[in-house]
Amino acid sequence: MYPLEELQKKIDAEIVKRTDRLTGRKPGGLYAPVEYSLSVGGKRLRPVLLLLGYNIFSEDVEKVLPAAFALEVFHNFTLLHDDIMDEADMRRNKPTAHLKFGVNNAILSGDAMVFLSYQNLFECQSPNLMRVMEMFTKSALEVCKGQQYDMDFENRMEVTEAEYLKMIKLKTAVLLGLSLKAGVLLADGPEEIAGQLYDFGLNLGMAFQLQDDWLDSFGNQKFFGKKIGGDILSNKKTFLLISALQRATGKTKSDLVGWLKMDSFNRDKKISAVIDIYNQLGVSELTRNKIDEYIIRAEEIVKNITLKEEAKKRLLEFTGKISNREV
Amino acid sequence: MYPLEELQKKIDAEIVKRTDRLTGRKPGGLYAPVEYSLSVGGKRLRPVLLLLGYNIFSEDVEKVLPAAFALEVFHNFTLLHDDIMDEADMRRNKPTAHLKFGVNNAILSGDAMVFLSYQNLFECQSPNLMRVMEMFTKSALEVCKGQQYDMDFENRMEVTEAEYLKMIKLKTAVLLGLSLKAGVLLADGPEEIAGQLYDFGLNLGMAFQLQDDWLDSFGNQKFFGKKIGGDILSNKKTFLLISALQRATGKTKSDLVGWLKMDSFNRDKKISAVIDIYNQLGVSELTRNKIDEYIIRAEEIVKNITLKEEAKKRLLEFTGKISNREV
Repeated sequence: MYPLEELQKKIDAEIVKRTDRLTGRKPGGLYAPVEYSLSVGGKRLRPVLLLLGYNIFSEDVEKVLPAAFALEVFHNFTLLHDDIMDEADMRRNKPTAHLKFGVNNAILSGDAMVFLSYQNLFECQSPNLMRVMEMFTKSALEVCKGQQYDMDFENRMEVTEAEYLKMIKLKTAVLLGLSLKAGVLLADGPEEIAGQLYDFGLNLGMAFQLQDDWLDSFGNQKFFGKKIGGDILSNKKTFLLISALQRATGKTKSDLVGWLKMDSFNRDKKISAVIDIYNQLGVSELTRNKIDEYIIRAEEIVKNITLKEEAKKRLLEFTGKISNREV
Repeated sequence: MYPLEELQKKIDAEIVKRTDRLTGRKPGGLYAPVEYSLSVGGKRLRPVLLLLGYNIFSEDVEKVLPAAFALEVFHNFTLLHDDIMDEADMRRNKPTAHLKFGVNNAILSGDAMVFLSYQNLFECQSPNLMRVMEMFTKSALEVCKGQQYDMDFENRMEVTEAEYLKMIKLKTAVLLGLSLKAGVLLADGPEEIAGQLYDFGLNLGMAFQLQDDWLDSFGNQKFFGKKIGGDILSNKKTFLLISALQRATGKTKSDLVGWLKMDSFNRDKKISAVIDIYNQLGVSELTRNKIDEYIIRAEEIVKNITLKEEAKKRLLEFTGKISNREV
């Protein structure tokens, strides 16, 4: 098995190679936002998970680099369209694609990325490819459902923790589960382990998204790549806000609700006021506990799985990276 | 073989059935625009072509109804997103989806429709399904390219006839070719005929799009479903406008260019002035001739193909419907 850093290097190089190939393709207006979004960087989490799942059962990871790339292209399609819907102007410390290329082009290039994902999947030779594509399609639809719930929540004052967890499961976690499962199945690994690694990926994805929520309030602007407090400004029903609304009473509650209902406000003041309330209520710790819960579940799955020790080590290594990340 | 009307009835019923199935699916906000766009009607050209291609080699057309439905869902996804980009407010005599449900929802539901298309394709049992999906993906990307060229042309004064024809080939014609070819391949029909029917569909698609351009100026509002003159108002580089710019000289040319460059104008006046110029220059006849050219090419292909007479009759019947349509 390759070390994680090696898998990361392989996919990074593959993304550069395949992104370069788009240069000069016509019409240029269609491919420029695709190149842009793929070249501004990112953690490449989904492709690394696919390679990791595959590598547990097969050494020739080069064979599935196109599928790994496909997942990254798909993920970037969702970012392009989500950023339009959320009116986000920064992503990975750069202007979002719709600001740089216009909304129409971000819509259309996002669409093209979906079909580019499928084209890259088709490049993989595997007896299970058809099934992987079917699972990929199901997960893609779930990601759309998650985004819909996320948008629905913006117009609602009351969102329960359970509703929130269901939303992030769809929007984020299923694709991490799919990445691992696809890797295992492309390597023709056993069905049972594919399922167990899917569950591992789900729990990892939950922790990942909660960490994202946490970083939006408590992260370091330098690493985070987005403006701290973006979720607060848009009243996003994150785990932090939902927990705060649940815990707050008396004046704290009315202050918090006041900020949520305010139509015009000083942006920095709102951010620091809400973070103050989070601090009073211990929301940061609550969120860290929830993250740990999912990390522990993910680790439990790894412990109970029938896999060689080296594979377990890699999976646990990955888990550690997720819960400590600042980016 | 089934008469065309019978194939039409089958797909109409299937679309109603499969659209009804979406009712009550959650989240409602995601599926409402999908249901809406599929239920406001349409010619169902692409699914009928798929059924026709299949029916030439196989009687059990029920088997490929999901694939036929998939093509209609895909087509409606392109309409949803194109209408946002074109800021169109009417489609099939109804408000466009983004006006009814908001731009964000039209983007997201459009995305979901892509994955619903793939899901419906997966339902078809055929040894050639993988290949059909690969071809479908390629065509889908070509449709995106066509839309990009169409948008690029809006910002250019000079577009040649050749550039225009290439654009509509990508944006419209390839999907009609794909529909027929997919039908033949799903029925495990011969490769050669699949290719010939693809070319037949391409020519049909060219005629179809030119007819669309023609109807925008010379159609009957009652049947057309969109406002007459929409292309004129947005300076769309249609075959009509390109031909007019090519033919016009002297005062006619400066009048036409004047209308194109005018920033504010009375909408009805612009439409009738440009149509007057089209009439002076014989643009309607020019367009009808071009349509006939493609229809004749399509008919030639049918004549030279090795097929039973009944199949040829059906294909020619279809061709007649395209060139006489008012809708």
